[in-house]
Amino acid sequence: MAHRVYNFAPGPAMLPIAVMERAQAEFLDFQGLGASVVEISHRSKEFEALVDETDALLREAMTIPANYRILYVHGGASMQFAAVPLNLIGRVPSRRALYADTGNFAGRAIAEARRYGEICIAASSAATNHDRIPEIDPAALEGEAAYFHLTSNNTLYGTRWNDFPDTGEVPLVADATSDILSRTLDVSRFGVLYAGAQKNLGTSGVAVVLIREDLLDHADPQTPNLLNYETYARDHSLTNTPNTFSIYMIRLVLEWLAAQGGVAAMQCVNEEKARLLYERIDRSGFYAGYAQPAHRSASNVTFNLTTPELLQRFLDEALREDLYALKGHRALGGVRASLYNAMPLEGVRALIDFMDAFEQRNG
Amino acid sequence: MAHRVYNFAPGPAMLPIAVMERAQAEFLDFQGLGASVVEISHRSKEFEALVDETDALLREAMTIPANYRILYVHGGASMQFAAVPLNLIGRVPSRRALYADTGNFAGRAIAEARRYGEICIAASSAATNHDRIPEIDPAALEGEAAYFHLTSNNTLYGTRWNDFPDTGEVPLVADATSDILSRTLDVSRFGVLYAGAQKNLGTSGVAVVLIREDLLDHADPQTPNLLNYETYARDHSLTNTPNTFSIYMIRLVLEWLAAQGGVAAMQCVNEEKARLLYERIDRSGFYAGYAQPAHRSASNVTFNLTTPELLQRFLDEALREDLYALKGHRALGGVRASLYNAMPLEGVRALIDFMDAFEQRNG
Repeated sequence: MAHRVYNFAPGPAMLPIAVMERAQAEFLDFQGLGASVVEISHRSKEFEALVDETDALLREAMTIPANYRILYVHGGASMQFAAVPLNLIGRVPSRRALYADTGNFAGRAIAEARRYGEICIAASSAATNHDRIPEIDPAALEGEAAYFHLTSNNTLYGTRWNDFPDTGEVPLVADATSDILSRTLDVSRFGVLYAGAQKNLGTSGVAVVLIREDLLDHADPQTPNLLNYETYARDHSLTNTPNTFSIYMIRLVLEWLAAQGGVAAMQCVNEEKARLLYERIDRSGFYAGYAQPAHRSASNVTFNLTTPELLQRFLDEALREDLYALKGHRALGGVRASLYNAMPLEGVRALIDFMDAFEQRNG
Repeated sequence: MAHRVYNFAPGPAMLPIAVMERAQAEFLDFQGLGASVVEISHRSKEFEALVDETDALLREAMTIPANYRILYVHGGASMQFAAVPLNLIGRVPSRRALYADTGNFAGRAIAEARRYGEICIAASSAATNHDRIPEIDPAALEGEAAYFHLTSNNTLYGTRWNDFPDTGEVPLVADATSDILSRTLDVSRFGVLYAGAQKNLGTSGVAVVLIREDLLDHADPQTPNLLNYETYARDHSLTNTPNTFSIYMIRLVLEWLAAQGGVAAMQCVNEEKARLLYERIDRSGFYAGYAQPAHRSASNVTFNLTTPELLQRFLDEALREDLYALKGHRALGGVRASLYNAMPLEGVRALIDFMDAFEQRNG
């Protein structure tokens, strides 16, 4: 039996052990072909069937309406920071788009979008170092806009949108990389919803894009073919060789998710995992949660200790107890525990037990 | 023991069995971390070391000069069809670039480049349906050009450049997807050399780009960050989460290649594999080779049979003998046997034995 830790990495993140074991078992021989899934043509009937199955599983898991297309695109969510404006900002003559600045990845999306149009920051949590979800400036919503972009969960700071803004006719575009499949989302509220795969979906190097069909055909002429949503939709994501291994892993993860009861059942477990951990943080003054309680993420729990020395000791001792990758992002410091779908409740309990013991020894 | 075929797929293609078995064995626990290589941060010291090792192995394998950078970029070679002009065509005020049209992928590269500048076809084999490498029009080489792009080996038609053109001060840019690491290439002859990973390097969804340092800093302002060579060079390809599994597989393939004696030793085996198969094709009139003999590829061997019925019987019976994925591309038809590094000599012998027996039964 392989040695396995409780892996709290923010992404690439741990995957369900059942998925990992299945991928390992069939790695040399996929469906009796005598070749691996990574060694067959993306145009083989076996791989095309795999894409169809992945579509069907995702459509079921997220209750994706019929007028939405599912795309598997190269490059992770960060490539979408350019693809979104290239595909959508030309919808309005002013090339104006609204963005919510809620942290690191939102900021990267904004910087990239500025290459392509007039970007208006409709909400920002920068003044409080992204410890909450900000209010939206009503003035920003006046006047035309190609879309409104937000990051549904902020991996780095540990905040999330609980209620999504009503943007009227302006399509809402969400980077849902760190909470897709972790809670029910009403896809029909979004014009485009995208997510890099390496947290809740599978392995890195691909992103899933859900797009309402009427938004498909607005790309700037200079959009690279492999950043154009219309291209992916037309070719069923097989324009060139996709990241076949990642798509295969997404299919395995979706099968596993269905067997767990789907997104709603997973959300119950996720909220319980987060509740237990935040309760432990708040129990005494020894640990200090970072995000404002009303905006806390269930995917990424951020907290700190009172001194850098204590923090380092915490991380070192946690690692010795097989609690892996708890170090916070360098921009914020502290501790970050990422509790994606694959993290079992027992992993959170093990972390809490460690936190109790650590406080007893050092409190 | 897993059932394994001789896999002649053009890409994604077979990988060395030793590589596949090692990846399988350590899939659940990478370097004793208790997590898979696909479950750890791309910014972990273990993954950064993996990228460094991959760089060193590739630099050794291809004798890459010190003034070239190695980039691992998202999206396969086809994404480079846009990235090359976005990064380089602005080098000259006329935004003029030269392209050799030698088949399917060259044609796609040309179509994509036309979004970004004035594309001049300096050589074309279209008139003979790409059965050879064309002569270069000397007139095209007069006047300024940002670069000269060619496809070093044409996967679909089975031709390759044996001698690369002398383009003087104009940087030569090569898509070497289907022959990288299969024969010695003098990297210093190229300004940029790129290759999708899924034939001779590893698994799909990533491309390797070798670029001379003086060409790094010419990208158009509207270049998406993740298509900008300067970004990848600055961040050691870790700007966002890369396709970590593919990079890992590339490292394993490069270790295997070194153990085989490197590219020169591999080239000897590859030339022998191709010689035997072409000799078999030419032995009687039963099989008809497609490419002109002087321009035949050692990576992709294309031939046909005299009737569609005979072709179909050939493919069906071959598959029953575990000779997999021999069907030619739909644009050309016939048979295509791809003989990348991972295809052992015994696989080619098995194919030849089958071809002998098939001719005896049907000739």
